[in-house]
Amino acid sequence: MHEFDLIKNYFQKLSRKTPSALNLNDDVFFDKKKKLVVSVDTYTEGNHFINFKKPELVIKKIIRSSISDLICKGVKPKYYFISGSGNKKSFSKSNLSKISKSLHQEQNKYKIYLSGGDTVFSDKLSFTITSIGFANNIVYRNKAKINDDIYVTGNLGDSYLGLLLLENKLKLNNHLKKYFINQYFMPNIQSKLVDQIKKFANSSIDISDGLLADLDKMINNQKLSYKIFLKDIPISSNLKKVLNLKKLSKINYVSNGDDYQVLFTASKNKRRIIKKIASNCRVKLTKIGYIQSNVKKLSIVDEKNVQISLKNKGYFHMF
Amino acid sequence: MHEFDLIKNYFQKLSRKTPSALNLNDDVFFDKKKKLVVSVDTYTEGNHFINFKKPELVIKKIIRSSISDLICKGVKPKYYFISGSGNKKSFSKSNLSKISKSLHQEQNKYKIYLSGGDTVFSDKLSFTITSIGFANNIVYRNKAKINDDIYVTGNLGDSYLGLLLLENKLKLNNHLKKYFINQYFMPNIQSKLVDQIKKFANSSIDISDGLLADLDKMINNQKLSYKIFLKDIPISSNLKKVLNLKKLSKINYVSNGDDYQVLFTASKNKRRIIKKIASNCRVKLTKIGYIQSNVKKLSIVDEKNVQISLKNKGYFHMF
Repeated sequence: MHEFDLIKNYFQKLSRKTPSALNLNDDVFFDKKKKLVVSVDTYTEGNHFINFKKPELVIKKIIRSSISDLICKGVKPKYYFISGSGNKKSFSKSNLSKISKSLHQEQNKYKIYLSGGDTVFSDKLSFTITSIGFANNIVYRNKAKINDDIYVTGNLGDSYLGLLLLENKLKLNNHLKKYFINQYFMPNIQSKLVDQIKKFANSSIDISDGLLADLDKMINNQKLSYKIFLKDIPISSNLKKVLNLKKLSKINYVSNGDDYQVLFTASKNKRRIIKKIASNCRVKLTKIGYIQSNVKKLSIVDEKNVQISLKNKGYFHMF
Repeated sequence: MHEFDLIKNYFQKLSRKTPSALNLNDDVFFDKKKKLVVSVDTYTEGNHFINFKKPELVIKKIIRSSISDLICKGVKPKYYFISGSGNKKSFSKSNLSKISKSLHQEQNKYKIYLSGGDTVFSDKLSFTITSIGFANNIVYRNKAKINDDIYVTGNLGDSYLGLLLLENKLKLNNHLKKYFINQYFMPNIQSKLVDQIKKFANSSIDISDGLLADLDKMINNQKLSYKIFLKDIPISSNLKKVLNLKKLSKINYVSNGDDYQVLFTASKNKRRIIKKIASNCRVKLTKIGYIQSNVKKLSIVDEKNVQISLKNKGYFHMF
């Protein structure tokens, strides 16, 4: 069963009396009166992270993934709760030291604070992170407007290349290998944008499942489609190098997940302010397409304006 | 490693800048300024619940266990988030229907609302529940005073008997079997007390790990001990019947966990108001002992004032 159906068929009705739950149809919970924003995510070994050989890096990845849900909505994360299930090996003294040190570094970097959690014994390793922030307003999903520009922050695809390297599905020199693996574990989430995004975005989401999968999610309740220009999707110079070297096609690398960049739509009349803010905050913001009415299907086109067919639109959570 | 040491050695320092985290030394997180109270707990199959043959009951148990953490502090739970890890069998359509129906019943009973969560694939079944409430103040741990009376709500031990029956370690007639198993899955948590407890309690906790284990937790930062009178520990008439019938000793049944009753201390001068509130709210409140200074060790005594030695003080979380 698709994650959407699961929520729709079994859980949405339970949230009907809670407008703050946003029909379980957004990345976060937002109680406007209490100004409270909450995000809850579970990460399991073998699924959200390959293994626990590098606890210090896995911890950074899951913390960033969790607070990214708030940041992409224009909300500063403040508190986080971590609940870990694992065995004695996963939570050995040496691993606990590494976990603790990593959390400390992330706390300093993002000004967040460990506020509670739980530890339980399990032969399967998983973590649930609850992130909490406070805000007067947030940028929602499902608020894109026809003709909105579609933007993305930073670069896409580096993280997926890191994953392929970790899975030994690709070989590269040590310098590049280190670069991509670091991007996989420590994505450059856009905390500098957190106070700015509400000034221009109509709708936003962070890219965890893949550019197109998350674009679909962002507008899933709206009768809208989009047009994305493959050539405009921003990638790092390192990824450009690898694509040339290995004769790989760009589309497969930018449409996979784990980038944790912010995808948002904004009215055309915001172009100037977006340029200005990007330059002031030193954040890379790239226009990659636009929202259109539902006359045509969703589409991504190549340099010759020819529609690209995709085998895999990204990661979909299934049961 | 004992749970206390794990928190103390690796995580407490990370919460130092968050007074609301209460040094990770209480059941909840409390941001006094924002009036926000949060509790996060993980429940795994084979550990916190035996199996998932009765999803509708397991769900009730874990929801009550989670909101019990807030209720024992005098905080009305309002929102809950549920993050489930499981496989296709655990989250079959039939089970999802049962889960959804159960959540609906609990929502009506306790006036709580599903506000978000996550579902991930895993061969090991577990749930993490985040419960959120709002309050101007809470009843803390570690605030017991010398000579405080020690009270407990409801009855103890029924839930443990239910567990023994589910594990086939005991045989009883169907009527009793049903009673105890229902108590195991659907403990009578004391939501009626939630607005009252702050009027009299100096310190409180809910009994999840066992009477003495939780009593230790409630005063663990204080140089205090306690004296508990076994004969005063309240048990149901059904449990009384079984203890007589099977010639079992009371102590083993009241010192195990999963009761989700409230354990609290209060000054002697609150005895009258406690009696009055108990009668008005129709909540059973029983005085079972008192707090003493650290001259003697912690103790529980029998009818002849002889100290009882305990093999098992309850459930301790170890790694």
